[in-house]
Amino acid sequence: MAYELYYWPTIQGRGEFVRLALEEAGAEYVDVARRRDGMAAMQLLMAGADAEHPPFAPPFLRDGDVMIAQTANILFYLGRRHGLAPRNEAGRLWAHQIQLTIADVVDEAHDTHHPIASSLYFEDQQTEARRRAADFIANRIPKYLGYFEGVLEINPQGERHLVGRRTSYCDLSLFQLVAGLRYGFPRAMAELEPRFPRVAMLHARIAARPRIDAYLKSGRRITVSSAIIRSSIRQARPLGGITSL
Amino acid sequence: MAYELYYWPTIQGRGEFVRLALEEAGAEYVDVARRRDGMAAMQLLMAGADAEHPPFAPPFLRDGDVMIAQTANILFYLGRRHGLAPRNEAGRLWAHQIQLTIADVVDEAHDTHHPIASSLYFEDQQTEARRRAADFIANRIPKYLGYFEGVLEINPQGERHLVGRRTSYCDLSLFQLVAGLRYGFPRAMAELEPRFPRVAMLHARIAARPRIDAYLKSGRRITVSSAIIRSSIRQARPLGGITSL
Repeated sequence: MAYELYYWPTIQGRGEFVRLALEEAGAEYVDVARRRDGMAAMQLLMAGADAEHPPFAPPFLRDGDVMIAQTANILFYLGRRHGLAPRNEAGRLWAHQIQLTIADVVDEAHDTHHPIASSLYFEDQQTEARRRAADFIANRIPKYLGYFEGVLEINPQGERHLVGRRTSYCDLSLFQLVAGLRYGFPRAMAELEPRFPRVAMLHARIAARPRIDAYLKSGRRITVSSAIIRSSIRQARPLGGITSL
Repeated sequence: MAYELYYWPTIQGRGEFVRLALEEAGAEYVDVARRRDGMAAMQLLMAGADAEHPPFAPPFLRDGDVMIAQTANILFYLGRRHGLAPRNEAGRLWAHQIQLTIADVVDEAHDTHHPIASSLYFEDQQTEARRRAADFIANRIPKYLGYFEGVLEINPQGERHLVGRRTSYCDLSLFQLVAGLRYGFPRAMAELEPRFPRVAMLHARIAARPRIDAYLKSGRRITVSSAIIRSSIRQARPLGGITSL
């Protein structure tokens, strides 16, 4: 039976980390909210007090009777089932630890657009966003990328992977983090990336994996530009502003 | 062999979720950074590129050869070893999902003090902090507490616990969340809490558990006021300001 993924249909966002794992696994899945009436189905599930394990927010994944929310938790679940994580407990926890650290930097990146409140328009917090983005670029991106560079460097199984000797969901997520940072902070990343060659190499290798390559070229990957257009129309939110930093 | 917990020695912070689990379990542990030369030991471990599984940030836990970082990951590990989580996979993932949601609201609460950057003094982002805190109180606290109230309400094993029929690390963490919100936003919480009676009752029940009660009354629990005094001295950061909201 196909997995059902529930996530906002017009952005990559946190759901993209799950999509990448499903694509790399070659798993059958339905991206529910992107289908006709899919948003209604998603909102019904979120409002449903009758669910056994209700999610607080998307993304969440349904696998038959099992419903799981929180991106890192979903990946922990999928990693075990599709060989996208080490098998032994220590390795699984280590992979999860890295994923949670990626989640932290993704949160911080998101907050550069919404330092005051996710509920406010970007233009109502633009000054604050500039200040926060400047700190994120100067202090946080180098610290996080330096950490992941170090993790690659010390992997006893080789610096091609964050964990173990095979591609894990962590590698897929680091790929997505780099892609997102390049889009959001192109000048800063152009300057910073030479300092983190292992991270840049990992991004290139993941992009070239057959299933990921096919996915990136397919209509299934939500393009950032189409997401921005749709988001701007819907929310009158000029998301492009921050990216010129 | 005693666990070694590594966390900033003068604040409750994220480390407190781990401390509560260790205390409820009656586990032997050393709060390393609070001992003489403990901060040096912690910083050495964080800088140590020779560690097999280096942490990005505290808290982290050492259990013999195993080193684990990320609060929710540590609790996942401890929950299994000390009966502080359900035993079956679905229950363990559900508990973890709740813990990650608690981590999200804790992050948002933290950011009400530091909306621009953790590296800046509070006084340099006080105006922004007021705006962010107002949104957090109006929109986010009710949404999160409403979610946890619902989770308690629908627990088929009874509304005394978030998960299953025994005290889990989730219950301990929700206790700590409520304690932190009451401290940080006393007026807002006084007004909001009557809408979430199950959450308030859970806080009271956890506080009364023998080991937690003993811990709260002991010198081991870092008091918030002493933490503020120390933090203000160290960082000239008037943390009290936001709490008058």
